[in-house]
Amino acid sequence: MWELRSASFWRAIFAEFFATLFYVFFGLGASLRWTPGPLHILQVALAFGLALATLVQAVGHISGAHVNPAVTFAFLVGSQMSLLRAFCYMAAQLLGAVAGAAVLYSVTPPAVRGNLALNTLHPGVSLGQATTVEIFLTLQFVLCIFATYDERRNDRLGSVALAVGFSLTLGHLFGMYYTGAGMNPARSFAPAILTRNFTNHWVYWVGPIIGGGLGSLLYDFLLFPRLKSVSERLSILKGSRPSDSNGQQEGTGEPVELKTQAL
Amino acid sequence: MWELRSASFWRAIFAEFFATLFYVFFGLGASLRWTPGPLHILQVALAFGLALATLVQAVGHISGAHVNPAVTFAFLVGSQMSLLRAFCYMAAQLLGAVAGAAVLYSVTPPAVRGNLALNTLHPGVSLGQATTVEIFLTLQFVLCIFATYDERRNDRLGSVALAVGFSLTLGHLFGMYYTGAGMNPARSFAPAILTRNFTNHWVYWVGPIIGGGLGSLLYDFLLFPRLKSVSERLSILKGSRPSDSNGQQEGTGEPVELKTQAL
Amino acid sequence: MWELRSASFWRAIFAEFFATLFYVFFGLGASLRWTPGPLHILQVALAFGLALATLVQAVGHISGAHVNPAVTFAFLVGSQMSLLRAFCYMAAQLLGAVAGAAVLYSVTPPAVRGNLALNTLHPGVSLGQATTVEIFLTLQFVLCIFATYDERRNDRLGSVALAVGFSLTLGHLFGMYYTGAGMNPARSFAPAILTRNFTNHWVYWVGPIIGGGLGSLLYDFLLFPRLKSVSERLSILKGSRPSDSNGQQEGTGEPVELKTQAL
Amino acid sequence: MWELRSASFWRAIFAEFFATLFYVFFGLGASLRWTPGPLHILQVALAFGLALATLVQAVGHISGAHVNPAVTFAFLVGSQMSLLRAFCYMAAQLLGAVAGAAVLYSVTPPAVRGNLALNTLHPGVSLGQATTVEIFLTLQFVLCIFATYDERRNDRLGSVALAVGFSLTLGHLFGMYYTGAGMNPARSFAPAILTRNFTNHWVYWVGPIIGGGLGSLLYDFLLFPRLKSVSERLSILKGSRPSDSNGQQEGTGEPVELKTQAL
Repeated sequence: MWELRSASFWRAIFAEFFATLFYVFFGLGASLRWTPGPLHILQVALAFGLALATLVQAVGHISGAHVNPAVTFAFLVGSQMSLLRAFCYMAAQLLGAVAGAAVLYSVTPPAVRGNLALNTLHPGVSLGQATTVEIFLTLQFVLCIFATYDERRNDRLGSVALAVGFSLTLGHLFGMYYTGAGMNPARSFAPAILTRNFTNHWVYWVGPIIGGGLGSLLYDFLLFPRLKSVSERLSILKGSRPSDSNGQQEGTGEPVELKTQAL
Repeated sequence: MWELRSASFWRAIFAEFFATLFYVFFGLGASLRWTPGPLHILQVALAFGLALATLVQAVGHISGAHVNPAVTFAFLVGSQMSLLRAFCYMAAQLLGAVAGAAVLYSVTPPAVRGNLALNTLHPGVSLGQATTVEIFLTLQFVLCIFATYDERRNDRLGSVALAVGFSLTLGHLFGMYYTGAGMNPARSFAPAILTRNFTNHWVYWVGPIIGGGLGSLLYDFLLFPRLKSVSERLSILKGSRPSDSNGQQEGTGEPVELKTQAL
Repeated sequence: MWELRSASFWRAIFAEFFATLFYVFFGLGASLRWTPGPLHILQVALAFGLALATLVQAVGHISGAHVNPAVTFAFLVGSQMSLLRAFCYMAAQLLGAVAGAAVLYSVTPPAVRGNLALNTLHPGVSLGQATTVEIFLTLQFVLCIFATYDERRNDRLGSVALAVGFSLTLGHLFGMYYTGAGMNPARSFAPAILTRNFTNHWVYWVGPIIGGGLGSLLYDFLLFPRLKSVSERLSILKGSRPSDSNGQQEGTGEPVELKTQAL
Repeated sequence: MWELRSASFWRAIFAEFFATLFYVFFGLGASLRWTPGPLHILQVALAFGLALATLVQAVGHISGAHVNPAVTFAFLVGSQMSLLRAFCYMAAQLLGAVAGAAVLYSVTPPAVRGNLALNTLHPGVSLGQATTVEIFLTLQFVLCIFATYDERRNDRLGSVALAVGFSLTLGHLFGMYYTGAGMNPARSFAPAILTRNFTNHWVYWVGPIIGGGLGSLLYDFLLFPRLKSVSERLSILKGSRPSDSNGQQEGTGEPVELKTQAL
């Protein structure tokens, strides 16, 4: 429980709340229909991707900028953060998402609100197909995040923020036709609670959670294995020692050279 | 007043004038309507974002490439520049914006000029909603700028120019529907003065200024606190000592290794 | 045959299988027609480019992320990998592509499947013109890959993943009108086998293979020559000694500083 | 005349020929009209930008990847290359552009060729307005190139290729409405000679040349002055000593650490 006494822990929780609020506000807002005609898929996909990229740039060094319970779950499966921190992140993300959707609701003219960009299955797509699609969307996304945040790499990775954001854009370019592209249970939860419409809502939890967990296992155990003993993993999960690689920094406010691995 | 005797100070002022001229020229120009049909939101949003990215690339090391009174105000709130410099930056930005709009006016066929891409509220959006939207648009933008320019970070940030430009694009993808996406009082001021139409013009000053100030406070005091004493802050604001972190370099013209923190 | 006893070799083969599966799944999926009207070229071109960028980011340090038999052929011509490895890569890519198209087929409503984004010649484009176009598309792509992966360069290259991905996007922006933009025999092979339509299929093998080989010769022998003796080249091709520059790393799972040249 | 005996000089000339061939081939090709309806401005602007980005990535370390007589002229005005080299670059660029347009012509069905994306003035735009627009388009482009290639900077510039490419995209997003966005006399010259249509062709030489020269003077003498004596400048122009900063490397083919300033 040493984490609860650390200011940087609470800054990270606040950053997750705040970033998810903005993610949902900008992502859902850019998906609203102001004019008739088909939805401009590319525009929406870029809005989600650039929203994530901007937030990773802005708070990535504070909390890791998960902004997504499925991503936090993946880091938990890879034993890269404590159970306590993961639980607090997810709670902050869900609260932030609902707050973001509520702000969006209040600033949008009633005629435009629609269903607040609720994730729905395209007619003709079965529940099994939709879950599979969400698994694949989140799997590539979490693989890209794990490879990009990997502190063992020191090569020409370019911008962390753009890499992660464009991977999310890719998921939307494909997934918006099938499921509206959830890829993030917090993003799917917020409009569902505001419109009180939970039809097939479980798909947007089960798919991303399975995809995130699979991505974590695939990267950390198969593709680029990380040698950690079981006891090391357990002590990280219990929070009895800090993890090196979950992206947040112990910010001291001093102009120090930050460690490269911290995003 | 030592700044007034420095050549690099006047180069920075000129760079702000020049960059805002180009920002307004390209941004407004790409928003004009040459054909009937709905405005291509994505195209306009990318034009603004790439214009800023190009200008940050071109003059970021000379003046910090604020190109925006709200951004300069945010750096002032964070006591990262002197009052004198901030005042001169804002004056140069407003003059540059009007000059850019005037050049655009003179090279554009009358049938195409329209209202020169004046920022207007979408029908159905109230003044309070519009101001809130402008606050949120500028808040994420200034947070991204502060995190990207932060000289305490040394991690995989990629291109400063693209990070900042894409954050502006994000704001336009959302905000163009609500308010036309000001996010920059100089950009809003220029077509207003050329078309003599100041309806609701205050929204485009109050929103970005509040958003910029909030972003500065949030980043510098809460998310990633900077330990500066009040006397340090005051001496920076008075200009009695140079600040390390407002983005401009004391260019000497010599091929020296530039300090990393200076953008 | 020492490679067959190395775990990193098999990880690379699996990464190629896996990455090509995802490349085909996302690329073809984003090309399907859910609504009437003309295909949105820019959207499809970005989907292919961002899919490749994401996969290079995710597995570039494991296998080099060729994801493309023509690219593997180009590295073979440049004697940057062994014949055995090249053969295994190509087999993994073709299997992965067919698996990706099969998954896509199974999650897509029958009305939308169409010909699974099969590459076809535009009416009026002759076989010779189509082959020439495929050669040019792949030539610029392989040149960009060779220059970006070149371990002799240490300059401001930015993100490897975006450079390679945007080069692929460029090829699609041009080539989709002429040939549907193959640029990758595995991508062209997968829908051909699922729809049992091999009309003009050879174009999508001959063009990219010639373009890839030409690109390799042009870069390695003419534009930026690499001084390797014939015996060195032969020993790399035979696999009797490791090559320094084909992009994969001998991952040990230890948090070591990775060599810069390895992508 | 020592340059004429250097293999790297001839490689640079060939790289300019080759890169301009590809630039014109891909840029003009992506601008052709395969379907009725308005031209997709964003798609064409991205095609030009990504073509340049890919070529800068591929041959930037060989010749500097000017691909443009106006850019070569700007480097000459900044006395960053010899007169002899500049003359050879421009000749190679013009030959390459015509070759690229000829290849495009031969692979394109006659019904699609149209005027091969010839640059023309929009009805209602005067010659003076068009020249002014071309000056502004090229001015921001050359400023961005000079600031990005500046060997005195060592800050977070990200990818050289994307910075330069997106600046070209910006110019097209604005300029395609006014003049078709030349910004490059070689690109304008190639379709003019193939379609034998030189109406107002001088605009596409005078505008970019003035814009390029102005950009060079503005950056090198005013915004970020470079202290070179007149005799230094003259000796570089005469080619009696190598310049440090025009982007090409004396490639030896050896795997050496390349100097950072060389792009």
